[in-house]
Order: sequence, then structure tokens, then C-alpha cells
Amino acid sequence: MSRPEFTVLARDPGTAARRGRLVTAHGTVETPAFMPVGTAGSVKAMTPQEVAGLGYTMILGNTYHLALRPGEEVVARLGGLHRFMGWERSILTDSGGFQVLSLAERRAIDDDGVDFRSHLDGRLLRMTPERSMAIQAALGSDVAMAFDDCPALPSPPERLREAVRRTTAWARRSRDAFAQDDRALFGIVQGGDDRALREESAAAITAMGFEGHAIGGVSVGESAALSREVVAATAPLLPAGRPRYLMGMGTPADLVTMIGHGIDLFDCVLPTRNARNGSLFTSTGRILIKRAGYREDPRPIDPECGCEACRLYSRAYLRHLFVAGEILGLRLNTLHNLYHYARTIREARAAIEAGVYAAFRDAFLARIEAGEDEDVQPAPAAGAVAGDRDG
Amino acid sequence: MSRPEFTVLARDPGTAARRGRLVTAHGTVETPAFMPVGTAGSVKAMTPQEVAGLGYTMILGNTYHLALRPGEEVVARLGGLHRFMGWERSILTDSGGFQVLSLAERRAIDDDGVDFRSHLDGRLLRMTPERSMAIQAALGSDVAMAFDDCPALPSPPERLREAVRRTTAWARRSRDAFAQDDRALFGIVQGGDDRALREESAAAITAMGFEGHAIGGVSVGESAALSREVVAATAPLLPAGRPRYLMGMGTPADLVTMIGHGIDLFDCVLPTRNARNGSLFTSTGRILIKRAGYREDPRPIDPECGCEACRLYSRAYLRHLFVAGEILGLRLNTLHNLYHYARTIREARAAIEAGVYAAFRDAFLARIEAGEDEDVQPAPAAGAVAGDRDG
Repeated sequence: MSRPEFTVLARDPGTAARRGRLVTAHGTVETPAFMPVGTAGSVKAMTPQEVAGLGYTMILGNTYHLALRPGEEVVARLGGLHRFMGWERSILTDSGGFQVLSLAERRAIDDDGVDFRSHLDGRLLRMTPERSMAIQAALGSDVAMAFDDCPALPSPPERLREAVRRTTAWARRSRDAFAQDDRALFGIVQGGDDRALREESAAAITAMGFEGHAIGGVSVGESAALSREVVAATAPLLPAGRPRYLMGMGTPADLVTMIGHGIDLFDCVLPTRNARNGSLFTSTGRILIKRAGYREDPRPIDPECGCEACRLYSRAYLRHLFVAGEILGLRLNTLHNLYHYARTIREARAAIEAGVYAAFRDAFLARIEAGEDEDVQPAPAAGAVAGDRDG
Repeated sequence: MSRPEFTVLARDPGTAARRGRLVTAHGTVETPAFMPVGTAGSVKAMTPQEVAGLGYTMILGNTYHLALRPGEEVVARLGGLHRFMGWERSILTDSGGFQVLSLAERRAIDDDGVDFRSHLDGRLLRMTPERSMAIQAALGSDVAMAFDDCPALPSPPERLREAVRRTTAWARRSRDAFAQDDRALFGIVQGGDDRALREESAAAITAMGFEGHAIGGVSVGESAALSREVVAATAPLLPAGRPRYLMGMGTPADLVTMIGHGIDLFDCVLPTRNARNGSLFTSTGRILIKRAGYREDPRPIDPECGCEACRLYSRAYLRHLFVAGEILGLRLNTLHNLYHYARTIREARAAIEAGVYAAFRDAFLARIEAGEDEDVQPAPAAGAVAGDRDG
């Protein structure tokens, strides 16, 4: 089996959006693509069949979480992550860098790697580029990520500089430690909100021959506007012939915006975590299903949605399930939000193919702008808070 | 639409087991039948489609829980319980008596009814036979249960006598308050572990013209052996031409035993609650999926089981999901246990049709007797503990 291959199929004439195809040993991923987050070997509340049934062809697995529990060697002995969790399509694993720095306790970072304590049991552990590569190889993901140093925002300039320097050195060590088989390795660009640092990082990382490139260090505490600004400035620095992956971000509006900047791959906990908090995406914003106003509301979550939750159940019932703490409520909410994301991406792909992406994007954003968003707490930029990238 | 009708299709020559058919406005229920418990308008963790897909044709809804939340009037305004929860097949509702007496707080029972405080918010409420009938009518269940006085065991003889007297009076009031439409009303026999009281209660209740009869007041604190003894003695007192329903009990071995005594309908929280506690039924007993011994076990829960959880996932993965607190683990465990119950009942029906029920039962019980039951804590006779009948 050869390495994963990426092909750009079509370019939108009015924006930087592109339609592409990433072929891995586990199938074809049409891009732009959104990857649901399967933190601990499960896209929370969903079966693999349901995730695939929604049209998803690639999910994200968390190196940090899986290494802690059940342990990558257990997963390897049970045939690798695909077989362990019964997901036959593609998997991308993150490097563990983000969680080690945001979720683990008492971490101490140096140029060689990171000492940290497990947030589960306090065990003292160490993560390095080499260890991250070994874990990801044991998990058997189709796309592995280089180990990076991902500081939160805001951070002082010297911390951002240090992170770029380390990310470059760790990218090289990751590449050198990466086993050459049928898997791909993506490099990660850091640099925070400093444009010159982003350029420096992009130049260094893209010179190393990675099969794809990610923008890391966004959605780590900064405003959504600043995230978008950073991505808009960084995306054009990444080679057009390889996939561009925006890590850990965003809302449907973020996705539609960033696709216009040439992003091909996304992951984010928002659809799944919001679902479990009762925050449900609609064509015009978000509704909070627990609201008393939905107590007897016979309408579906979103009249325009064709998902099972919207076809079969009322807001009143979903509110009841949520208030009563019923697992089925979490399931149906998750199904709905993931369907909404899949639909958004599907429509975006169609708009690129038709060469009308700018019009699609503007109309999509205008509807949300005009609509009501009931989930107004400054949507803690997914991944911003410690532990936030847990699915 | 006419009232639900029950027909006995076949009788086993060697036992009291019978094959029957209950036809309601929402379809045909082949008996013996097990009803999964859908406490609060949801068979916990399952969609209605999944429950139906397992072969279930009737579920139980809890009058007490639904009256408290979301309120039976909300359910009625949204089209009744079938439509509210998206379950198109038959529904039996209990009377609320059991929960009022076991789950509610600060209850005060008198001959007219029961004052109690909601376990959810402390609201002071009152339940009477008339109120129970009104709630069940609003929910629109196919089979309603008469309101009964269900004491725990052990109870002093005078408490058991009082409960029988009240249950008789309340059954009459339930019958008088029951709207004559396309729904059925079942009476409940009480009497605790006192044979003479059971006979007295059965005589009184079966004289009232109910469309079916239930044995209540078992699995309320007594040993499994005593439960079986009470059922064995009471079942023959119930008219053979009407369905006999054993309330709130039991294990697969209980079901197989009680079917041999002529029981037609069962409900119990065991398959669903055990699943959420990681206790999984197999052909030879139960396994506790959290055990360290399953950490790398590639086998399915039960090699003889054809359910989705057993076809697609290893014990190692299910253990991981359970330990990690993943919702998918609760789903797959529930799916498995409900499949196991459905399979047990299906095999029992086939054995009755073939006229070999005694041999089937003896072989079934022998395998469990010879097997290992890892869930050995004196399986708190389902329904014994306050709150235990919550699905």
C-alpha cells in the first residue's frame, strides 16, 4: 500500500477554496472535510456506523487520551485503533502536544520534550516527538501529526518565539522518527498571533517534506475574529498541492469562512460537546434545548434539517430528554449537530464545484448573522480551555 | 377500534406455559413477552427504532415519572406518549402506585389515596385511583394498570392485609374511573408472601372483569426463591383466558421459570440498569465488563450472541468504553442485554410451540447453574430498592 495521496480536483474562481481528495489505506476522504473528534476511541455517544452513515470518512483520535487509557500497546495488540473501535474508514491522530500542555497536570517543558502528570491518575509521564510518533504508529492512524509546542493565547512574545523554535526542532525529530509505511505525517505551523512568527514557522515546516500541513495554535484563548485573522494570513503560506488542516476549530460559520481561505481539513469538539450541553446548531444559529419555551414546542430542532432527530422528534421531547438527563437526548443532540456539520461541508463542496463559493459563503454567513444565537456565552473557542479537546 | 384482545394460541403439555397473542390498537404482542422499561419516555440509552429492531412490541411507561416530568398534560398536548416518544407499538403504563410508595418522599397513605412529595422538587402531590386513571388516559397507553397498594417485603401481616383490602377497593375505583375506549385495564393482585391473602386478593380482583391480571408485590425486598414461590402459587389463581403479567421481575432465569408457571407478560429494569452498571448477561450467567481480566480480551461478550455489540466489538473495547465513561459503552451494553432478553423470550416461545417447554427450561437453567455469575452481589431483586424501577 502506498502513502496517502492528495489531489486538488477543483478550485473556486472567486476565493481560495478548493475541492480535493485524500486517499488513504482506509478509503477516500473528499475535502473540504470535517473530522468528528473520537477522543478516547469513540465519537462520543455515536456508533461508528452512525458516524459513517452521516457521511464522515475520517475521524480524529487523541494520542494523549489513548496513550493514557487504554494504552497504545493494548490498542496495538487488539489490531490497532481502526479495529479496536470498529471504525473502518480513515483516522487522523493528533500529536498529544495540545493535551499535554492544556490538560495534563504539573507539566514541565524543555527542549527535549514534556514531563507531565496524567490527569487521570497523576502518573508521571514524558512526551517527546519520538514517543508521540511511537504512540501514533501503535495506534495505526492513517495520518499522524508531528509533535508541536502549542502555547495558549495570549502569550508573551518570547514564549511564542520559543514555541516556534521548538516546534521546528520537534517537527524534524518527528519526521526522522516517523516510520515510512502507508501512513502520512503532517507538520504543524505555530506562531500564535504574530504574523512574522507564523511566516517563519511556515517556512521552516513546509521545507521538511511533510505530506500535509496544519495550522496549530488557534482557538487557544483568543477571540474568534483573531483566530480567523491568523488563519487567513497563514493558509496562503502552506503549499497548495498538499492538504491544509486547521486544528481544533470551529463553528459552522468558521468552517465556511476558512474553506474560503483554502482550508481542507477541520476537527473540532463543538458539534459533539455542544450537543451534550444541549446547544444545537440550526440554519440560523443555535438553540438551547433546555429553555422553558420549548416545553411544548412540536417543531423539530431545525425545520430545514433532514436528520433522524429532526425527522422523528419534537423540541418538546428533546427538551424533556435533556432535562431528565436521558442518554437518548445526548445521542439525538449529537446526531443532529454532526448531521448539521456534514450538511454544511457537503453544501460547501458543492458550491466549490459549481464555482460559486463566495456567494454560498456570504449567504450562509448572512443567515447566521440575521438569526438568533441562543448560545451566546462567548463560545469558548473550542479547545481554548484545559480539557476542551476531549470530544 | 375495539378493546385489546388476548388469545391463547398454544399450551405446553408438560408445564403451565402458554403461547398467546395480545392485539392492541398499536399492533400485535406475541406472548410470552418482555417489556423493556421506558421510565421517562425513553428506554434508557435506546432509540425506539432500536427497541423495535430487537423484536420488542410493547414497552412499559411509568405513570409516576411521566406525571412529574414532563407532566401528562404536556404529553397529551403533544399527541400522547406514543407520538411524544416516537414509539409506534404498544405501551403498558403502570399505575404509579409502586413509585409513589418506594420513590416519593414523605408519603402518607390513607384509604382514599397517597399524599407524597415529588422526589424531583419536593412538590406536594396526591395520587388516587381516579388520578392514576386520568394520567394513564392522558398518556394514552394501550394497557393501563389499576392503582394498587404495594408494600415492601417483609411487612407485618396487618400491613399486608391492609394492602389487599385497599388494593381491592382501589381496583374497583380504578375500573369505575377507567374510560371505555380502545384501551385495556389490568387489575393487580397483592398479598405479599401470605398465601391466604394472595388467594383472597386474586378472588376479589379477578371477579371485577379486568382484561388482564397482574401479580404485584413481588421483587420488593424478598429473596428470589420466595418471589418464585409466590408467583408459582398465585399464577394459577388468575383466569387462563386473560393475560397474566408479573410486575417488575426478573432475571432471564426468572423469566424462563415463570413462563413455566403460566406468566405471559414481564417487565423489569434489570437488562437496562445492569447494562449501565456494566453487568452483562450471557448464556451462562453474567460478566462484569469492568474487570481487569477483560482489558485485552478480544472475545465478544457472549460468543453465542448475535447482537451488534457482540458482532462488532471485543470485551476489551467494551471494558475501555465503560472505564472511560463513554456513552457508547452504555448503549452497547444496553443493546446487548435487551437482545439477550429478546432472544431468551423468543426461544421460550418456540419451545412452547414445540411442546417441549420443560426440557427447554431445565436446560436453560442448568447452563446458568453450571456457569459463573460475576455479578454476585445479591442481585437486589429488581425493584426492591427505592427508585429501583427507573429503567
